[in-house]
Amino acid sequence: MKRSLLALVVLGACSALAQAQSSVQIYGTVDAGLIKRTEQTLSIGKRANNTLGFKGTEDLGSGLKALFQLEIRYEPDAGTIEQGAGAVQRPLFQGQSRVGIQGDFGILRLGRALTPFQEVSTQFEPFHGLPTPVGFQTDLTVAGYTSDPLGLVGNSTNRFSNALFYTTPEMSGLQLVTALATKEANSGAALVGRGTAALPQYAANAEGSVTPYSMVLTYKNGPAALMLAAERNAVETKLWSIAGAVLPTQDLKLMLSYQRQDQDHTKLSNPKTKSWVAGINYSIGVGKILAGYGQKAPDGLAKTKQTSLGYEYSMSKRTYLYFDGSSKKAPTQVPNSIRTLAVGINHAF
Amino acid sequence: MKRSLLALVVLGACSALAQAQSSVQIYGTVDAGLIKRTEQTLSIGKRANNTLGFKGTEDLGSGLKALFQLEIRYEPDAGTIEQGAGAVQRPLFQGQSRVGIQGDFGILRLGRALTPFQEVSTQFEPFHGLPTPVGFQTDLTVAGYTSDPLGLVGNSTNRFSNALFYTTPEMSGLQLVTALATKEANSGAALVGRGTAALPQYAANAEGSVTPYSMVLTYKNGPAALMLAAERNAVETKLWSIAGAVLPTQDLKLMLSYQRQDQDHTKLSNPKTKSWVAGINYSIGVGKILAGYGQKAPDGLAKTKQTSLGYEYSMSKRTYLYFDGSSKKAPTQVPNSIRTLAVGINHAF
Amino acid sequence: MKRSLLALVVLGACSALAQAQSSVQIYGTVDAGLIKRTEQTLSIGKRANNTLGFKGTEDLGSGLKALFQLEIRYEPDAGTIEQGAGAVQRPLFQGQSRVGIQGDFGILRLGRALTPFQEVSTQFEPFHGLPTPVGFQTDLTVAGYTSDPLGLVGNSTNRFSNALFYTTPEMSGLQLVTALATKEANSGAALVGRGTAALPQYAANAEGSVTPYSMVLTYKNGPAALMLAAERNAVETKLWSIAGAVLPTQDLKLMLSYQRQDQDHTKLSNPKTKSWVAGINYSIGVGKILAGYGQKAPDGLAKTKQTSLGYEYSMSKRTYLYFDGSSKKAPTQVPNSIRTLAVGINHAF
Repeated sequence: MKRSLLALVVLGACSALAQAQSSVQIYGTVDAGLIKRTEQTLSIGKRANNTLGFKGTEDLGSGLKALFQLEIRYEPDAGTIEQGAGAVQRPLFQGQSRVGIQGDFGILRLGRALTPFQEVSTQFEPFHGLPTPVGFQTDLTVAGYTSDPLGLVGNSTNRFSNALFYTTPEMSGLQLVTALATKEANSGAALVGRGTAALPQYAANAEGSVTPYSMVLTYKNGPAALMLAAERNAVETKLWSIAGAVLPTQDLKLMLSYQRQDQDHTKLSNPKTKSWVAGINYSIGVGKILAGYGQKAPDGLAKTKQTSLGYEYSMSKRTYLYFDGSSKKAPTQVPNSIRTLAVGINHAF
Repeated sequence: MKRSLLALVVLGACSALAQAQSSVQIYGTVDAGLIKRTEQTLSIGKRANNTLGFKGTEDLGSGLKALFQLEIRYEPDAGTIEQGAGAVQRPLFQGQSRVGIQGDFGILRLGRALTPFQEVSTQFEPFHGLPTPVGFQTDLTVAGYTSDPLGLVGNSTNRFSNALFYTTPEMSGLQLVTALATKEANSGAALVGRGTAALPQYAANAEGSVTPYSMVLTYKNGPAALMLAAERNAVETKLWSIAGAVLPTQDLKLMLSYQRQDQDHTKLSNPKTKSWVAGINYSIGVGKILAGYGQKAPDGLAKTKQTSLGYEYSMSKRTYLYFDGSSKKAPTQVPNSIRTLAVGINHAF
Repeated sequence: MKRSLLALVVLGACSALAQAQSSVQIYGTVDAGLIKRTEQTLSIGKRANNTLGFKGTEDLGSGLKALFQLEIRYEPDAGTIEQGAGAVQRPLFQGQSRVGIQGDFGILRLGRALTPFQEVSTQFEPFHGLPTPVGFQTDLTVAGYTSDPLGLVGNSTNRFSNALFYTTPEMSGLQLVTALATKEANSGAALVGRGTAALPQYAANAEGSVTPYSMVLTYKNGPAALMLAAERNAVETKLWSIAGAVLPTQDLKLMLSYQRQDQDHTKLSNPKTKSWVAGINYSIGVGKILAGYGQKAPDGLAKTKQTSLGYEYSMSKRTYLYFDGSSKKAPTQVPNSIRTLAVGINHAF
C-alpha cells in the first residue's frame, strides 16, 4: 500500500506496472486504387481491407502464452473508419478484438472476430478472400450468407461479436476451428423475416433465438488441403461448405468451393441458396495471375454468375501493384450486368 | 526558410522535425469474460476498462519534463470504442488526453481525465476501483455522484473535460491532487433539475453555473494511508469523502470509505445521499481474495446494499484470471435484487 | 499451400507475413491552452492541430520507396476525434491517409490529405498555418475558400478525399505539387448555390460537376521562396494565390500572400473575394515573435480585418509555450469585433 498508493496517484494510470515488460507489435495494410464500374463514376477505393493493428503475446511459462489482438479498419480514400452500407461507420476495431490463452490444448480466445468459416474459407478463394468487388468472398463464396444478421446496421456480415473462439492444435494434418457466440442483443435493426414490417420476426435490438456457432475442420496432406464447414447464425440460418485446394507445382494453386445456405427460419419462399467458386493462382516471376469463376443460385430463382481476372506485380514482399477486372451478372443488382476494372497499390507494414 | 520550405512540402508533415527524438510508449489492457446477471442472458463483457494508450515524457533539463498521455478505451466483445448508456460511443481518448509539465513544483497538466477524487478513491475500493458491476466504484464509492452532469449523453460520469490538473510533490507523506475545469458548454443534453421538461434548469448545451473543482489530500504513514476529498460539479452538486486503508501484513489490505453528496441545487427533495464501503484484499500465493460490503442511502429513501466477493489467479505479472460474484439490492433497479457472476481474463501489455 | 494455409488459420491474420520486416513510426502533437474570446467564457482549446500518426517507408530497390501515412486528429480538451462545426466528429485519420511510391520521378500517392495549395500556403503564414483563431490560415490566407464543398457536414474544408497526389522532385529550385480528385459523391449535405432550398444546385450526396484539382509551383533561391497556386473544387469555385517569403537574416522571416476566390458558379452576387496577409517571424534566443496583418474583401461588401501577435518560448526542440493575441473585425461574425487571448503548451512526440 505504502509504495503503490501515491505512485499510482502521481502516474495517474492503473496499468503502470505492466509497462516495463510491455511489447506491442504494430502492423497493418494500406490499399488504394482507381476503380471504374459500369454506370458509376471513376472512384478511389480499395481491393483489400485496410488495417492498423496492435498485438502481442506473453510467455506465461509451462508452454502457455497470453495473447491479444486489436485491429483498426479504415478507408484511406476518405480517412474514415471502415464504412458499411449507407456510409455507416463500423466499430473502431472492426478487424478483430480478442484476448486469450494459447497452450498445448490449442488457442482459446474471447471477443469479436471473423467466424471460423469466414476466416478459413478465404484460403480457397482465388482473390485471397479480399472484399474487392472483383473477388468472390463477400457473396458467392458464402452463398450470400451473413454471420451477424442482428448486428448493427451497416456492420460487416462475417463476424461474431460476444464470442468464444477455440482452435485445436494440428493433429495428423487435421485441425478444428470453432466459435460460439452468446445470444445477447447488439443494438441491431429489426429483421422482418417471416413477420411484417409492423411486427417483425426479430424486433430492433432483439436477442438471438439460438446460440450462433461456426465449426471448420481442415485437413492438409502434402500439397493438398480440404475444408468442411458448418455455421448457424442468431436467426437460425444454416450454412455448410466444402472446399479444397491443391498445389500441383509450387507456382500453381487450384481452388474449388461449394456451399449451401438454408434460410427456412426467416424466409417464406426459396429459402435455400447454393453456390460454387473455382479459382486459380499462377505465379510467374514477381507476378501472379488470379482467375476465378462462380455461380450462386437461390432455388427457383435466376443465377448470379461472375468471372474475374487479376494480376499482381510484387515490388517487394510487402508491396504490390494490382490490375483487376471482372464481369458479374446478378438478377438483383442494378444494372444486371456490371463490369469492374481496378488498378492500385497494396502496402503492408 | 531555404532549407525548410521544400523539405516540408516533400514530407507533407509539419511535425517532421520532431520525429528523430520521438519516443512513444504503447500500453494497454484487454479484459473479457463471461457474465451472468439475474434475468439477463449470458453475455461477454468486461471487469476492467479496456485501454490502448500512447504516452511519453521528454527531459527539458533543469529538472523539468514535458509529458503527455492519450488513452483509447474500447469494448473487446464488440470491437467498438467504449460505450455508455444506449450504446452511445464515448470519446476516442476516453481514458484520458492530457499534456503538461512536471518539475520540483509537481505536475501541471491540461486536458481531460478522471477527477482527482474519482482517481484517488479507486485505491480505497476492494475491486481496484474497476467498473465491473461486482465492484463498488461507479455507484456506492461515489454516493451516486457524477462529476460531469452537463457532458455528452452516455459519456462517463467520473471525468472533467476542459480542465487544469495540478498534483503537488509528496511532502512528509502529504500530497495534494487538484483539478479545476472551465464552465464551457459541452454539447450535453438538457438537465431538468428544479425546472420542468419544458423549461429545464440547465438547457441543452448549457454552460456550468459554477467552476467545477476537485481536491484530494492524501497522507501516508508506513502501512497506512488516508484520503480527504471534496468535489463540486458544474451544476453545483457537492461531494466530500473520507477514506482510509491499512496493511497489517503485506498480504492483507483493509479499506473503508465514507462519502456524502449534496444535490440541493438541482433536487427539490431528498438532495443528500451518503454511502460507505468496507473492503478487504487478501493475497495467498498467486491468488488474491477481494471482498466488500457497502450501503448507499438518499436521506428519507430506501437503502442500496451490496455484497461482493472475487478471486484473482495470477498467471504472470501481466495476466490474471478472475472469478467474481455479487448481490446488490437497490430500490430503483429492476429487479430490486440482482446477482452477478463473472469469470474472465485480464491481460496488460 | 501446405505451409501457409494452417499457419494463417492459427494466426488469424492475413498480414502476418509482413510483420517481420515491419517498421512503423509513431509521431504526434499535443497542444492545449487557455483561450478567452470576446463575449465567450474562458475555455480550454488548441492552437495547433493535435495529431497521433503512424507512418513508414520501405526500400523497394532501384531508388524506389513505398510509403504510407495515417494521421489521427483529436481534441485533447475533451478527448474526442477532431470535431467540426456542431461538434461533428471528423474522420479518424483526418490528418491524412495516403499510400504511394517515391522515386526519381517524385512522389505519387493515393488517398486523402491537404490539397497542395492548403499545404504549401502554410509556409507563407506568420502562425505556421495553424488553425488557431489568432492565425490567418483558415480564413484570410485562403480568401474564405473551401476545397471540399460537397464533403461531410462539419468536415474540414482544406482537403481532397479520393485523390491522386503527385509531387515532382526539385529542379533548379522549382518544384510542382499537384492533386487531382475524383468526382465521386461523399455523403455531403445539399448545397443550395444558385438553386433554392427545395431544389438545391447540388443535392445531398451529389457528385461533383467537375474534377477538382490543385496545383502549386514553388521556387526557392537562396533565402527567398515564391509560390504560385491554382485550385478548383467540385462545385467549380476557382482560387489562385501568389505568395513569397524572404529571410534577410537567419532570425527574421518576412511573408506576404495574395489570393482570389471566384464563386461565380454557385453565387448570384459578389462571387469574387480577394485577400492578403503580411507576416513576420523574428527569433530572439529561445523565443520567437510572430506578427501578422491581413484583409479579406468580397467585391462590394465590407472588409474583414485582422491583426495578430504571438510569442513562442521553446523549452526544447519538441516543446514550447505560446502567448497569443488577436483582434478581428468581420461584418458577418457576432460580435463584429472579437479579441482573442491564448496561452498554452505545444508538445511534439
